[in-house]
Amino acid sequence: MTGSGIRPVRWENGVVVILDQTRLPQEEVYLRCQRVDQVAEAIRSLRVRGAPLIGIAAAYGIALAARDGASRDSVLEAAETLQTTRPTAHNLFWAIDRMVARMAMGATASDLIQEAVAIHEEDAEMCRLIGEHGQALLPAGASVLTICNTGALATGGEGTALGIIKTAHKRGNPIRVIACETRPLLQGARLNMWELAKAGIAATLITDSMAGTCMQRGMVDVVIAGADRIARDGDTANKVGTYSLAVLAKHHGVPFYIAAPMSTVDLGIADGTQIPIEERSADEVRGFRECSAAPDAAAVFNPAFDVTPAELITGIVTERGMVQAPYEQAWGT
Amino acid sequence: MTGSGIRPVRWENGVVVILDQTRLPQEEVYLRCQRVDQVAEAIRSLRVRGAPLIGIAAAYGIALAARDGASRDSVLEAAETLQTTRPTAHNLFWAIDRMVARMAMGATASDLIQEAVAIHEEDAEMCRLIGEHGQALLPAGASVLTICNTGALATGGEGTALGIIKTAHKRGNPIRVIACETRPLLQGARLNMWELAKAGIAATLITDSMAGTCMQRGMVDVVIAGADRIARDGDTANKVGTYSLAVLAKHHGVPFYIAAPMSTVDLGIADGTQIPIEERSADEVRGFRECSAAPDAAAVFNPAFDVTPAELITGIVTERGMVQAPYEQAWGT
Repeated sequence: MTGSGIRPVRWENGVVVILDQTRLPQEEVYLRCQRVDQVAEAIRSLRVRGAPLIGIAAAYGIALAARDGASRDSVLEAAETLQTTRPTAHNLFWAIDRMVARMAMGATASDLIQEAVAIHEEDAEMCRLIGEHGQALLPAGASVLTICNTGALATGGEGTALGIIKTAHKRGNPIRVIACETRPLLQGARLNMWELAKAGIAATLITDSMAGTCMQRGMVDVVIAGADRIARDGDTANKVGTYSLAVLAKHHGVPFYIAAPMSTVDLGIADGTQIPIEERSADEVRGFRECSAAPDAAAVFNPAFDVTPAELITGIVTERGMVQAPYEQAWGT
Repeated sequence: MTGSGIRPVRWENGVVVILDQTRLPQEEVYLRCQRVDQVAEAIRSLRVRGAPLIGIAAAYGIALAARDGASRDSVLEAAETLQTTRPTAHNLFWAIDRMVARMAMGATASDLIQEAVAIHEEDAEMCRLIGEHGQALLPAGASVLTICNTGALATGGEGTALGIIKTAHKRGNPIRVIACETRPLLQGARLNMWELAKAGIAATLITDSMAGTCMQRGMVDVVIAGADRIARDGDTANKVGTYSLAVLAKHHGVPFYIAAPMSTVDLGIADGTQIPIEERSADEVRGFRECSAAPDAAAVFNPAFDVTPAELITGIVTERGMVQAPYEQAWGT
């Protein structure tokens, strides 16, 4: 599906095949999901993650339910199961709504499978366009700081923020990347560094706490992050730590861009205060995998996302191009 | 030595007993160092850490060398070995210089042991005074955000930043703590949370990337951090991530204090640009303990400290009280 050859989710003879990203980069294990609850578990446990990709996985999950029963009830039940997996990423609800709407228009099981494949293919094309629009913003040889994983492992194509980086690299721009490791689940260290190495792009890994000193030392020309949900006014929820990067970027006069497809924009909410922020298990923060750090009884606050207000965002790159404040007008709806 | 009963370094019948902090809080293992190179290894490997405490450990290391040889050469050789262990903390050089100066004045081995014990006891007293001066700055019921470990495990007494927190708690101020985990070596998660639990102080652990969202949500009233070296103008090197906290605090109008004894102040340098910043092994960032995250070949930038410019610091609390800019005058030398 993607130029990089990475296929984290695919439909294969009536089975949803999901790359278990919790085990990357040490192990490349594929799960074969034959029931919607297996897809839901994979989303809930972050075996499949990244806002656009969980939308795609959910669409395939509904296609599974349709194939099994083809009844209206089984599809609606699947939609309900999938809706409760994770609360923040808008793409999840967008994809589920689109599948349910298609069914309401009388789609057959086969039509719903085609619709899921279409969602997947359209996302790849949106990534391509985001990459094109975004790469034009990067000065030659720029050092780009990014967070989490926003590449082929997070989308149906080459990625959003990482898609821009890859496109610039393919166009011959000798950019370099500084990748924040992205605690607690280390998607930057595990997934972004893996994808960047595969793409042959020069990348340096830092802990999230080092972004400030990197900017202070003049090591960062641009920050680009992805998004899990964008409110009508441009306020953007993304992986926790993104907001700190935006504040640091402002303090240092570094441009701060968000990259996301329009399926991430939630026109139904006015601003970021209305975005539900998922809180996850304390164990994620107390250690990493089987290595515990904090005392077992340590109290933890573990919001998976934070909200960056629109005024800290230089621009949002979608498949339509870069948009800037005032965003209400920019969405063009 | 300390009210908390934690004794991370002690002199015991001619042996320097060091609590191996790399194994905390899961295991409480004590090393018995009989030679200066064992003390140097313990400092280099962060088995003993915290700017004031490595000064104390180094002083005992020199006492060991004096006891073994009592010759001027063996003491100078020990001083040289210890000076190369870690480059940033000023207390290390301050303590070594003090021991060498004492020897130059004709001290016996026994005098040098007494001098090391005096350095240790004076540090405990400085912590007590820092705690007293600092607790007066905390509003009743304040939520205090801090980084790294700056308590009994980092000093000869109850601590610097954490000493202030403990003193406020003992005075009946129902403060709460938000502890940044402090990647890469997780001194916040492992050591601060352990000390805070022992002291019975309500504390919540977060990843370093969550400090921004905590401030944005109004969950932080004050930030207090320790210091590894303070330049004449007040620029302060401390654990990497401190600078980001200072920028975030400024953005949110939250007071940002540094707590450190005068032995951390390096009057020999004009500003923070002259503070050498230690860079440590890539493996520290690629994973944690035996759990690896990033690909083995991942390039890493791993500065152990960053420098917070004086203009972002509300005040510096030393044993003499709180001082504020202009710091050149405030040191009173």
